Amino acid sequence: MFDSGIGGLTVVRELLRQLPDERLLYFGDTARLPYGTKSGETVTRFTLEAAEFLREHDIKALVVACNTASAYALPALQERLTLPVVGVIESGARAALEATRNRKIGVIGTSATVASLAYHRAVERLATGVEIVAHACPLFVPLAEEGWTHHEVTRLVAREYLTPVAARGVDTVVLGCTHYPILKDVIQEAVGPQVRLVDAGEGTARALSERLEAEGLRAPKSASPPEHRIFLSDLLPAFRATSERFLGQKLPPVEVVHWQDERWVRV
Amino acid sequence: MFDSGIGGLTVVRELLRQLPDERLLYFGDTARLPYGTKSGETVTRFTLEAAEFLREHDIKALVVACNTASAYALPALQERLTLPVVGVIESGARAALEATRNRKIGVIGTSATVASLAYHRAVERLATGVEIVAHACPLFVPLAEEGWTHHEVTRLVAREYLTPVAARGVDTVVLGCTHYPILKDVIQEAVGPQVRLVDAGEGTARALSERLEAEGLRAPKSASPPEHRIFLSDLLPAFRATSERFLGQKLPPVEVVHWQDERWVRV
Repeated sequence: MFDSGIGGLTVVRELLRQLPDERLLYFGDTARLPYGTKSGETVTRFTLEAAEFLREHDIKALVVACNTASAYALPALQERLTLPVVGVIESGARAALEATRNRKIGVIGTSATVASLAYHRAVERLATGVEIVAHACPLFVPLAEEGWTHHEVTRLVAREYLTPVAARGVDTVVLGCTHYPILKDVIQEAVGPQVRLVDAGEGTARALSERLEAEGLRAPKSASPPEHRIFLSDLLPAFRATSERFLGQKLPPVEVVHWQDERWVRV
Repeated sequence: MFDSGIGGLTVVRELLRQLPDERLLYFGDTARLPYGTKSGETVTRFTLEAAEFLREHDIKALVVACNTASAYALPALQERLTLPVVGVIESGARAALEATRNRKIGVIGTSATVASLAYHRAVERLATGVEIVAHACPLFVPLAEEGWTHHEVTRLVAREYLTPVAARGVDTVVLGCTHYPILKDVIQEAVGPQVRLVDAGEGTARALSERLEAEGLRAPKSASPPEHRIFLSDLLPAFRATSERFLGQKLPPVEVVHWQDERWVRV
C-alpha cells in the first residue's frame, strides 16, 4: 500500500479487518508530503517512484491509498505494473452511488484531487444522471495532523467549506482524502445528520479482496499473524502518536528509506 | 536565495528594496514543501541539494530565507560552500534583541524550527539574561496559503496559539517563519498592541548588505534593472496569485526544475 504519508493508515485499518491473513507492506512518502497541494505532474512522478520501491519488494498487488495519487497516477501505474492496482477513487465513487437516494453527491478532498475531476469521471463511468458537488478543503489535513479533531476552529472551518455543499442538497458526501475520517464527527455536524458520509477505506478493502479472489491471489489462512512492514521516507518524532490515532492500534517497527540516485536506499 | 517554497518572497521584497542593484536567483523547493513539519535530517538533505543548484548558477552569496532550513542546515552549508551564507535566524534574533525592553522575547515558527531551539542558541550567542518563550504554530502556513489572512478562523487560531505566549509577558515576538508577515494583523491583535512584532526579512536584507559590503561583493549601480530569475521544483496553477501577494508586486517568469539522478534538471 502506498500513501503520501500516514493518512493511508485509515485504509489499513479496514484492510486488516477484512483481510487478516494478507501481509502488508506500507510505504508513506512522508519526506515529500503533502501531495494534495502539488501539481498532477509532480504527484505522478512521486507516485511512480514509490510504486517502484514496493514492486522491488515483490508485492502481488498495489493499493494506492492516497486520493490525490489515485486521481493523477492510476493510469500510469496500471500501464507500468503487471499486477493488480487498486485506487481509492473508484471504490469511493461506487460506495457513494450505493448510498445516494437523490443522486446528488458531494465530494470533498485536497485542492489537487478536486481539480483533477477524478471523482466526476469515476461516477460517470458507473452511472448517468448523477450530480456531483465537489469542494476542496485544504485546511482539513493540517487540522487532522494538529489533532484538533473536535476543536472549535475545526467546526468553523468545516462550516465554511461545507455549508455551500450541503446547500446544494446532496444526500451523500464522499470523504475524498484519507485524513478526513479522523474529522468525521465535525464534518457530519457541518453537513447535517441527514447526509451520509462515505469513507473510501471500507470500499477499497472490499475491492482489493474481490480482485485478489478473482485473480487467485488470496493468502491462505495463517495460524500466526502475518508480519507487516512500514516504510517511510522521513521519520518525525511525533509520528507514532499520530499514526496510532489513524490506525486505531499499535504500529509495527518503522523502516526509513531515502530517494537517492533514482532509487530508494535504506538508512 | 533559497526557500522551501514561496514564503521567502516576503524576504525578497525587503531585499529588492534595500539592494536594488543586486541580481537575484530565487529557488523554491515547492515539490517537497513544507519543510517545517519534517525531520532536521531531511530538511538538511533537501537544503544542501537546493544550495547545490544555486551554486551551479555561480552565485556570489546565498540567503537561506526559510527559517526551518536556516535552523538545521546553516552549519552544513557554511562548511560546504566557500561563499557568504546568510540565514534568517541570526538576523531575527538580532532584531528582537534591539526591539525588546524587558528582555522577554516570544518566538513563533513551524514545529521543526521551534523544536530546533535555533533562536534560543542565536540569542544566547548575542546576549545573556534573555528569556525566550517559543511556540509552534503549524496551522499558520496553511492559513496563509489559503489566503485567510483576516478570517475569523485565523483570529481564533492565533488566539489559541498566542494567548499563552502573551501571558508570559513578552514585549517582542519574532515572526520565525517567512509566511507569518502575511498574517501580521491577526497576530498583532492576538498578542496585543503593546507587543512588537519582529520580521526577520528586514534584518536579513541588512545583514546581507553588510556582508557583501565587507567582502567587496556589492554590485555596482546599474542603469537598467537587474534580471532576476525564479526557479521552482513544482509549478502550481494558483502559484502566481499567492506569490504576488507575498512579493507585493509582479513576478518574473518562472522556470521549473526537477531533482533527478542527484542533480537538478530543467523541464
